[in-house]
Amino acid sequence: MRIVTKNDILANLDTAAALSAIESGFKAFAAGKVQVAPVVHMGFPDARGECHVKTAHIDGTDTFTVKLATGFYDNPSRGLPSSNGIMAVISARTGEPVAILQDEGVLTDVRTALAGVLAARAGARADATVLGVIGSGIQSRLQAEMIASVLGYSHIAVWARRAEQAQAVVQDLNAKFPQLSIEVAESAEAVAASADTIVTTTSSDAPLVQADWVKPGTHIVAVGADSPGKQELDTALFARAEHVIVDSLSQCIEHGETANAVADGSITQDKLITLGDVLSGPGLSRSADAITIADLTGVALQDAAIAGCVWQQLTLTSSAA
Amino acid sequence: MRIVTKNDILANLDTAAALSAIESGFKAFAAGKVQVAPVVHMGFPDARGECHVKTAHIDGTDTFTVKLATGFYDNPSRGLPSSNGIMAVISARTGEPVAILQDEGVLTDVRTALAGVLAARAGARADATVLGVIGSGIQSRLQAEMIASVLGYSHIAVWARRAEQAQAVVQDLNAKFPQLSIEVAESAEAVAASADTIVTTTSSDAPLVQADWVKPGTHIVAVGADSPGKQELDTALFARAEHVIVDSLSQCIEHGETANAVADGSITQDKLITLGDVLSGPGLSRSADAITIADLTGVALQDAAIAGCVWQQLTLTSSAA
Repeated sequence: MRIVTKNDILANLDTAAALSAIESGFKAFAAGKVQVAPVVHMGFPDARGECHVKTAHIDGTDTFTVKLATGFYDNPSRGLPSSNGIMAVISARTGEPVAILQDEGVLTDVRTALAGVLAARAGARADATVLGVIGSGIQSRLQAEMIASVLGYSHIAVWARRAEQAQAVVQDLNAKFPQLSIEVAESAEAVAASADTIVTTTSSDAPLVQADWVKPGTHIVAVGADSPGKQELDTALFARAEHVIVDSLSQCIEHGETANAVADGSITQDKLITLGDVLSGPGLSRSADAITIADLTGVALQDAAIAGCVWQQLTLTSSAA
Repeated sequence: MRIVTKNDILANLDTAAALSAIESGFKAFAAGKVQVAPVVHMGFPDARGECHVKTAHIDGTDTFTVKLATGFYDNPSRGLPSSNGIMAVISARTGEPVAILQDEGVLTDVRTALAGVLAARAGARADATVLGVIGSGIQSRLQAEMIASVLGYSHIAVWARRAEQAQAVVQDLNAKFPQLSIEVAESAEAVAASADTIVTTTSSDAPLVQADWVKPGTHIVAVGADSPGKQELDTALFARAEHVIVDSLSQCIEHGETANAVADGSITQDKLITLGDVLSGPGLSRSADAITIADLTGVALQDAAIAGCVWQQLTLTSSAA
């Protein structure tokens, strides 16, 4: 069994290969060829902590993955990061644990952003050039980086509740993409006024994007609502939407943005389409002036796909050495 | 994060401390002070494989444990063991993974045997001297070793479907306990005729111990039935039993020996008592000529208790070094 540190993981992470593996994973999921175990939740209220265990296997792949992800929200006061975690990679042929990826959560960050790329590509207009980003955390940066670079946006507008944090995101992005036009937006409304594609990345528990701000032709990728009680989008957007893509029907109905919209009757379940089905098909038939939404809650298949990818690369590297 | 190999685990495993930790764990469980997550099951039919993920935290302890246990039944034909696994030990204060115990399943073996000791002590007559063992696998050896040595039995009778394997168990036990009288029994019926306490350790799917063989005053510890479809005891034993102890009410009703007996009406749920309740109380009030049964399915708290114990010992050793 190999122990792989975060640095070695990053050195062996081919994001193009991971994007492809996650895309294949979503297609397999839509075809009923992914085994996703129910998520284990453990709570540690005394320490304001929680742990999730996510397990998945994509049929036909050599390994399956058990991911432990922790969030302990008093940690920053002790100088420790809130989030931590490991992924155990296990042979699907022999049951042997082959690797512990001590990724400290970075693979979750990347696989979340890569699903954003797939969701943006699946729903956005072909002529989209302006990417709007709501939020200023790690997903704000990663989604902006990956969507912009993979899908070729020329402009990025960033808004966050704290302006100085939005400014920091813009600075970081400008340093990486000097050829793009990247700016802080004055408000979420201003983001909506300019963006062709909006990605929302906050942990908000109340709508940040109002329905009447969003212009026709916009595609929204919502990645913030990954547990009950979170909400970034006005549910009226779902009533206006021509298409609503969900990464996992059961999860999105249970705790995604979609859950809020289903709860208040803005949308019915029969109008939802899964990301895997869109990726497997000829592409979304979207009108140029329609609003479309992709609701991402994060599916364990993404962990299995990215961990398998890193493991495969490590194996190749070892063979070559 | 520390990686601990099987040899280092065994060197830092204090079985007396582990027994005490598991006993405390069962008491806490009975008091509602253990967080046990639903067990995750993954199946790999092409490789005749399975994986279980068991997660638990005992309130007030420093760590919690996520155990991955695999069984891939074509492995022996490739020269690999069927069973494998690791335990991840995670801080319940900060969420940091502090250790990966690469125990290859040995901690599961030991924690299972230690629950056998607790269950034997909880139900057996105080004057019991003859231990009967049904089966010839790792649990046959470990249960015999631990029950005999901790509880002071003077005689052990072993029966298994394959006589040469029972003989091998007896040889191994004789080498370890030259002062005891240890013999192969001719039949399961012969075991029942001589034993004060019987421990059943097979993966049988049909009763091996018939009710009318068992003499008054016998205590039976059944450890084989850890998943649906398994059965070692004639359900009529449950109808005759004065007390039936279960390690976990929900698990035993779902897939233990008890499940079979509840299903055919040999016992009703209100007659069951949990091991934790027995251990927390003044002791089982058993008649000298009664039959009693303890049904063990294996509870994740045992993993958390033994892994925590090993981790504590490793921490002490490191501090001293």
